[in-house]
Amino acid sequence: MKLPGKTVQRLSRYRRILYKYRYLEEPYIFSHDLARLLNINPVQVRRDLMLIGGSGNHRKGYHVKELMQLIGEKIDSEKGRKIILVGIGKLGQAIAEYLSDREMFQDIIALFDIDPVKVGKTMYDIPCFDIRDLSQMIKKKKVSIAILTVPSDYAVTIAELLIDSGIEGILNFTSVRLNTPENVFVQDFDIITSLEEMSYRLSLK
Amino acid sequence: MKLPGKTVQRLSRYRRILYKYRYLEEPYIFSHDLARLLNINPVQVRRDLMLIGGSGNHRKGYHVKELMQLIGEKIDSEKGRKIILVGIGKLGQAIAEYLSDREMFQDIIALFDIDPVKVGKTMYDIPCFDIRDLSQMIKKKKVSIAILTVPSDYAVTIAELLIDSGIEGILNFTSVRLNTPENVFVQDFDIITSLEEMSYRLSLK
Repeated sequence: MKLPGKTVQRLSRYRRILYKYRYLEEPYIFSHDLARLLNINPVQVRRDLMLIGGSGNHRKGYHVKELMQLIGEKIDSEKGRKIILVGIGKLGQAIAEYLSDREMFQDIIALFDIDPVKVGKTMYDIPCFDIRDLSQMIKKKKVSIAILTVPSDYAVTIAELLIDSGIEGILNFTSVRLNTPENVFVQDFDIITSLEEMSYRLSLK
Repeated sequence: MKLPGKTVQRLSRYRRILYKYRYLEEPYIFSHDLARLLNINPVQVRRDLMLIGGSGNHRKGYHVKELMQLIGEKIDSEKGRKIILVGIGKLGQAIAEYLSDREMFQDIIALFDIDPVKVGKTMYDIPCFDIRDLSQMIKKKKVSIAILTVPSDYAVTIAELLIDSGIEGILNFTSVRLNTPENVFVQDFDIITSLEEMSYRLSLK
């Protein structure tokens, strides 16, 4: 069964709430609590959970661990498990630190940079390699997702290298739009452009 | 003249390229170089610049400083000039550092947190205040854009406080969807959900 993108996004968010309760002894949660915590309509939550076959207990709610496992079975894929992060400037470091700190199904398995001071080091428990080893690592470890945080001047070249090496999904934090083949997914996170566009939109009001 | 959102985004990106050349003596740039650096069709670049009244010199290209000023006149607004960042955890710090390092039309004028260790300090040259002073500061300084990087449990409460105080644009880095009035713009940057959704999409291929 193919789930709509919005449903996958919500399931991902439900799971992140559930993570927090996982160390409790036999924790349960009600759909309306999940709904409240995420600011979603409770009917929507129940519909999503029913869609993936989740069933709650009327008195206790949903079993947290079972629900986490169920969500994982539906949305996790071995293919998207390994992530690399390319470009360890300030933003790259921040994202590496932020993600290394999280309980995620996915792992950042390697960082890449050209700076000899960083290459060979371990940052936030993740080893940093020379960008010359990028292609080999992607192929060897079957990495399919890359977070791109290189300076914009390098974005196109590095993106091409990533795709040629087998990367199928890119989270693009550079200001450059990438022309990628149809089978490669790109999601743009351009913070500065978003702030400037927001400012423009405010001026029209 | 109201510019389409995509045009504003491109103009913002052109300007970021231009910034790099601003210290040169009388710098010029060709539209095809701008296009190449941003991976955009040169015809598109010329069309955008023509739309805002920019004119290039056939032999030298566009005058960098004039073009920067022209873009600023078209897309910058006094209303969106001041930004605050709320929630100075790891991601908040990272974004503050990343943005404080940039040449932007916009300024992050204040950080907000509840942690007494952070409140009263200056981080990345930006003062950090107690969240209790949030509302007063927004009104007094006429702040209209906030970057929201609080833990998800606080997202709804803080967003309501922001909007009640006069904020009209929110860059939302939490995993919570915000129900905001129509006149408030929200842009979501949910990195973990994006990674998980990408993983799911890869599994369908």
